[in-house]
Amino acid sequence: MSKQFDGWPHIIESQQFSREWLEKEFLPLTDEMKIVFENRGCEILRGMRMVSSFYQPSTRTSMSFAMAMDYLGGRVVHSSENAGDFSSAKKGESFRDAIKVINRYRPDVIVIRYNKDIGAKFAAEVSKVPIINAGDREPGQHPTQALLDWRTIFKRRGAIDGLKIAMVGDLIKGRTVRSLSYLLGKFNDVEIDYVSPPNTRMMDDVKEYLTRHSVKFNELTDLREVAPLVDVIYQTRAQTEEGTLLDMSAGYFIVDRTILDLMKKEAIIMHPLPRRDEITPEVDDDPRAVYLTEQIDSGLFTRMALLKMILAPHK
Amino acid sequence: MSKQFDGWPHIIESQQFSREWLEKEFLPLTDEMKIVFENRGCEILRGMRMVSSFYQPSTRTSMSFAMAMDYLGGRVVHSSENAGDFSSAKKGESFRDAIKVINRYRPDVIVIRYNKDIGAKFAAEVSKVPIINAGDREPGQHPTQALLDWRTIFKRRGAIDGLKIAMVGDLIKGRTVRSLSYLLGKFNDVEIDYVSPPNTRMMDDVKEYLTRHSVKFNELTDLREVAPLVDVIYQTRAQTEEGTLLDMSAGYFIVDRTILDLMKKEAIIMHPLPRRDEITPEVDDDPRAVYLTEQIDSGLFTRMALLKMILAPHK
Amino acid sequence: MSKQFDGWPHIIESQQFSREWLEKEFLPLTDEMKIVFENRGCEILRGMRMVSSFYQPSTRTSMSFAMAMDYLGGRVVHSSENAGDFSSAKKGESFRDAIKVINRYRPDVIVIRYNKDIGAKFAAEVSKVPIINAGDREPGQHPTQALLDWRTIFKRRGAIDGLKIAMVGDLIKGRTVRSLSYLLGKFNDVEIDYVSPPNTRMMDDVKEYLTRHSVKFNELTDLREVAPLVDVIYQTRAQTEEGTLLDMSAGYFIVDRTILDLMKKEAIIMHPLPRRDEITPEVDDDPRAVYLTEQIDSGLFTRMALLKMILAPHK
Repeated sequence: MSKQFDGWPHIIESQQFSREWLEKEFLPLTDEMKIVFENRGCEILRGMRMVSSFYQPSTRTSMSFAMAMDYLGGRVVHSSENAGDFSSAKKGESFRDAIKVINRYRPDVIVIRYNKDIGAKFAAEVSKVPIINAGDREPGQHPTQALLDWRTIFKRRGAIDGLKIAMVGDLIKGRTVRSLSYLLGKFNDVEIDYVSPPNTRMMDDVKEYLTRHSVKFNELTDLREVAPLVDVIYQTRAQTEEGTLLDMSAGYFIVDRTILDLMKKEAIIMHPLPRRDEITPEVDDDPRAVYLTEQIDSGLFTRMALLKMILAPHK
Repeated sequence: MSKQFDGWPHIIESQQFSREWLEKEFLPLTDEMKIVFENRGCEILRGMRMVSSFYQPSTRTSMSFAMAMDYLGGRVVHSSENAGDFSSAKKGESFRDAIKVINRYRPDVIVIRYNKDIGAKFAAEVSKVPIINAGDREPGQHPTQALLDWRTIFKRRGAIDGLKIAMVGDLIKGRTVRSLSYLLGKFNDVEIDYVSPPNTRMMDDVKEYLTRHSVKFNELTDLREVAPLVDVIYQTRAQTEEGTLLDMSAGYFIVDRTILDLMKKEAIIMHPLPRRDEITPEVDDDPRAVYLTEQIDSGLFTRMALLKMILAPHK
Repeated sequence: MSKQFDGWPHIIESQQFSREWLEKEFLPLTDEMKIVFENRGCEILRGMRMVSSFYQPSTRTSMSFAMAMDYLGGRVVHSSENAGDFSSAKKGESFRDAIKVINRYRPDVIVIRYNKDIGAKFAAEVSKVPIINAGDREPGQHPTQALLDWRTIFKRRGAIDGLKIAMVGDLIKGRTVRSLSYLLGKFNDVEIDYVSPPNTRMMDDVKEYLTRHSVKFNELTDLREVAPLVDVIYQTRAQTEEGTLLDMSAGYFIVDRTILDLMKKEAIIMHPLPRRDEITPEVDDDPRAVYLTEQIDSGLFTRMALLKMILAPHK
């Protein structure tokens, strides 16, 4: 099996993927997967076993992985959305034990969402079985989300180079916008507008990475300022899983009729879901909204492509 | 695919089913399903995919659906008993998003138990994939329970016309007695005795429906009064999921030895389970008790029949 | 189907298994299962259905059973790690109802972890379908753990007779050390050292059983005293599921470098997992440590063997 990307065969963070891989390997494979899906599935992963261990429930993401495995003919032998235990062990220690235990059963792939630190990275360190990161605890990364987001943009706009992208909301915790930023840093003439209250701005690790890769970025507090200029608005949750609310009085962060009227005709509106009140329902039927349609489809094709690539590279 | 009942292909509430459909379509199909079950399964749903999303855990109901799918050769690709998120969104909004997302994966059927409002109805409004309501939040409906209850009565008594039925307990919240009442309203000379404390009486929507369909009903507080007269005692939980206790001092609501001694020999005792203290263990082995036997069997055959009808109507 | 052990076909507690069965039936079958595993599975349980109902979550144990079923070609039709309801019913009553309900669906085997009393025993009383106890509430038993522990020791040491075994930690609640003690009582010249604070000593039922079977045992508070003498150190959790901490000041109960240096070269270190701080990470790579390797493997082969024995005895 040839090494396809850094860290192969584990999928841990966006930095692993090169521009060449994204465009030459990943994208064509997702298009193949779309055909498999439209044919109602295939059998190339027949007999293969996935274990899915979520320490933090996420019905949406675990369903997407289960569907991807199923459409390829594989099966989820064990799935937990409540994998944690009441551990008082040293940080990550009992998690590493869990990964070692799962390894003994020799599944073909392990899908992990850990609720502390950068669990997937810890897992990859001790696992011979391929690990797929289904979302770190925030802040952290969510690389399969970044890949599906990247594909969604690429399929609509035909290219990433030269795009201007607004990322909106709770950026300090947002693993999806963190992972997507790392991915966009690999392209030319990309410009990112980070729109958030001052206290939830994007963290320095990402901004330093962008500076190193010559990606221009701005930080502002009013989405109306950039809505007419951007090609993509990537909205995130206004309320974090920890329950803190975005300080709405610090600017303008809602995607609503006002923003729709300002936006370019060919721009798109994205969201990782679940959506709260940060995109109003009137936006849903606008042709620029892709969060309930193309992002979901790309999510399925992305996960199918990764599974195919890792588990059956020569089929 | 021909339309078999109102609202086809979604199964949302008891009002959808006509007397003709119940007797001519549904009942014979459940008998076929019994034979499939006794043969240890078949393959007519081979390759078909169920998604089961419960926002309120119910091991019993989700197991019944999973078994039904399995005995027909289909599979549950994803099942969650904890599908809810900590949403602050407008009522039902994020739930509608979830249904739209699941639709993108193109499963063949979606089984839903929602924890707020009449979720299955909301789901059906936005879903192209058939929705089966596995129980609304109380009050609300539980149509597959009503169908299995109806079948249980029919198989034991040979007819519904002319029966006298007591429904006992927390009627104000009881989705099972609500759904069954709607179904019984389609038959002739049925009479219902609602036995409950004054503060948990059957709600007006059901009583108005019965009046409109000329179904006689009475409201009383002592099961002993009607126990000698009824053909069916349908007992419900004495403690609601919200934890409020039935006011036992307001009358007589327990099915026990006293009630057994009063009942007709050919009458039956039903309960939707889980049972608490409202039926005493001494009742379990009485031949009139069907809650741990025929109701469970009918539940499996009912769900198998619905799945067969919706997913493989011409096989 | 011939009766293979007491209580056949249910697996409830360690007392069921005779020395002869362990050595002549069980052990060779686990070795066969190891070959099946290395061949990536077989189909002898094709078409067979497991129901797995856990009233107390245990990702580790439920995964081991799911994997065992899968490697034999069977399937888990329904699995719940949250099977309990908010019942106020009499002790065990609604649980017995649940087992009766599951029986109506005619699965081939039911795996149970109950959170009150000795649930598996209750279940076996009312179940025609084979019940496998996946762990009682503590104190209680965990017979499949005892079998895998027994196999692990046997495979390393070649015999059980004559061994000296230290069991360490919270012995009063430890179902694993309780079940293993019952099993060891069937062998000759075994000696057990129970190492625990005075307030968490092994309970009398086990000690009386050992006395009756002429097994020598000692109770002490310092693992260092016996570490140089024993063939096995069986460590247990320093913190119970109820959250109480072992009184560490009452003696020496940690397996660390100090203990490693004292131990015999051919001794082994066991733990039922999850591990907390009671075995330090420096122990993990010592060749005497088997808790992340051989115990896990034996767990899989043990559960496969039991399933094969009960569900397909003549294949």
